[in-house]
Amino acid sequence: MTALDQIITPACVIQLNKLEQNAKRVFDICEKQQLTLRPHVKTLKSLEAARIYAPAPMPITVSTLAEATCFAEAGYTDILYAVTLTPNKLTRVETLLNSAVNLTVIVDSVAAVKAMSRSLTHADSLIPVAIEIDCDSHRAGVKPDSQELLDIADEISAVKSLRFAGLMTHAGASYAALTVEEQCSIAEAERNAVLYAADRLRAQGIECEMLSVGSTPTILAPISHTGVTELRAGVYATFDCVMAGLNLCAYNDIAMSVLTTVIGFHCDENGVLIDAGWMALSRDNGTSGQAYNCGYGLVCNKSGELLKGWFVESTNQEHGIIRHKENLDPQAVFSFGDVLRILPIHACATAAQYSHYYVTSDDQTIDATWQRINGW
Amino acid sequence: MTALDQIITPACVIQLNKLEQNAKRVFDICEKQQLTLRPHVKTLKSLEAARIYAPAPMPITVSTLAEATCFAEAGYTDILYAVTLTPNKLTRVETLLNSAVNLTVIVDSVAAVKAMSRSLTHADSLIPVAIEIDCDSHRAGVKPDSQELLDIADEISAVKSLRFAGLMTHAGASYAALTVEEQCSIAEAERNAVLYAADRLRAQGIECEMLSVGSTPTILAPISHTGVTELRAGVYATFDCVMAGLNLCAYNDIAMSVLTTVIGFHCDENGVLIDAGWMALSRDNGTSGQAYNCGYGLVCNKSGELLKGWFVESTNQEHGIIRHKENLDPQAVFSFGDVLRILPIHACATAAQYSHYYVTSDDQTIDATWQRINGW
Repeated sequence: MTALDQIITPACVIQLNKLEQNAKRVFDICEKQQLTLRPHVKTLKSLEAARIYAPAPMPITVSTLAEATCFAEAGYTDILYAVTLTPNKLTRVETLLNSAVNLTVIVDSVAAVKAMSRSLTHADSLIPVAIEIDCDSHRAGVKPDSQELLDIADEISAVKSLRFAGLMTHAGASYAALTVEEQCSIAEAERNAVLYAADRLRAQGIECEMLSVGSTPTILAPISHTGVTELRAGVYATFDCVMAGLNLCAYNDIAMSVLTTVIGFHCDENGVLIDAGWMALSRDNGTSGQAYNCGYGLVCNKSGELLKGWFVESTNQEHGIIRHKENLDPQAVFSFGDVLRILPIHACATAAQYSHYYVTSDDQTIDATWQRINGW
Repeated sequence: MTALDQIITPACVIQLNKLEQNAKRVFDICEKQQLTLRPHVKTLKSLEAARIYAPAPMPITVSTLAEATCFAEAGYTDILYAVTLTPNKLTRVETLLNSAVNLTVIVDSVAAVKAMSRSLTHADSLIPVAIEIDCDSHRAGVKPDSQELLDIADEISAVKSLRFAGLMTHAGASYAALTVEEQCSIAEAERNAVLYAADRLRAQGIECEMLSVGSTPTILAPISHTGVTELRAGVYATFDCVMAGLNLCAYNDIAMSVLTTVIGFHCDENGVLIDAGWMALSRDNGTSGQAYNCGYGLVCNKSGELLKGWFVESTNQEHGIIRHKENLDPQAVFSFGDVLRILPIHACATAAQYSHYYVTSDDQTIDATWQRINGW
């Protein structure tokens, strides 16, 4: 049994009880609404972590084919790859499909379907293809009221090796929705975009098996998701400072932290140097536009209790500088060698800096090490 | 022989000729000044890459003990670990020293020396310890004119298992020095800080074997580095958009790029969607304060030729959005499935997102795959 303060810092720590509690919160929402949950595994990208919030054979969402491959090998059979498929990835997709995994890919243009059709190598593939709907002009997707929506569905139906699987959307704009009213409004728009697009296809005689929506803010929004077939979300499993800034969780619910050590003081400016820079924390500063700017992370003691007002103000590759919001003298609080834990601004970005996580239940000792699936 | 456009995107590509040319530029500077070069391997963290710009048995600088361990196993015997040592890393350091590697660690406080002394486990270790000097109030280090400098040197000399190795400093402020005059001025200050500190120690009867200075902007500054024993720098091997923005290289010298594929268009706003988001590019936006803001990367065609005015304006986890500085219509230039290459804003941060690199000499085919050493 290794004590937390004996492992080499920086390191990424998962608090198991909090992960379980966050997972249960979303399981309960979906159960109450009798909706399928398809968790996005892109935050932790870990088979061991997924046992808590997305146990097989639950359907899952992935952000890379590396995740798809590992989860398929571990027994997951219903996988949605939620980034537009490119021709250079088609062979990998066909290999996965031939291993009896139902891997659904997405497109949002006729050009993407034509490119897929040209690149198919196995005549006997039957690739499930969903259309991504743009519900908020945030990123990808086809507009629900566009002619191209109908053209894409027709194009998919015209290719023998493709099977039209339905519609999906993601309200990326919800990460900037600061009030519950805005979150509800975006969640309604997300659902309505998919339902409207499905109605238009139905009028053309095309049925949608899957109507998939979601993001952490929209699935937690207190609306009824009636009409869709499933909800997707990912970062709720760990939460992070961005989500806490949207009042979707308390800081105390955040299940991930970066273990770090005090390595000195920047005396002129009341700074504390730690051995966690952007390599350990990421460069994400996603709370900079929120009411409370957490910088590059909020500071906890080694047991995970928040040290109010202390935050990581700046980072270099292997150095971070902590300061207090009211510029307090840090030497009254911290000493060289102190072990601290930093709550992540954006858990997906922070987790991406690690190959594995240390798991704790008691905030004192390590129970397990979980591996992460990096790369594409 | 794999063609560049056949590998799964996103992927990190190293242009071998440019890496060699950048390495030669710094070899020549050091040869001309008859100074030892101690390259920092923290950008690429790759044994294969280091063969070009830091071939063994050259002395090297590392940012993690993971790098120190791998490079030591590969025959490097003179390694400077340039982050203040914490007690939880001491056992790893002692293990390396016992394998006959000269691993120098750094401290910048009496507290750090005392902590090291308390945590020593092998009575027969003799750990070389250098003192980090603060030359620009940027980050870590002890001021060259401080009493603590003398106290730290005394404290090191008082511990039987420690050997005082000399002084090092890093002018981190040089990354914000926009003119050659500023770069020279910071380089002079960096050198002078170490020489002044060494004079003060000499007056106390303490000799400095190593006087180590450097950062890419300061070692490229046209000053004489007389008096120091060695120069350190790292990012010059690949360069990046931040360095180009400081006029330290041309964009065409940048030896690293991220291979990506066009996955769609954001038609309302003249955006091009690519399959390289912050997971592939990093969140670094270090040119945002420079004259030319490159966003999250500059766009090249698949042969590495810059497409003037096109840059990555925003990123999500697996999506990037390219736009033109003058908001040109992208559909006249790009098509679905086009393979592009993105020049990194900060090569250290972009490279950190990968486990390996694809190496090309002709910008068409892959010659080799180089592994990267991640973690701590």
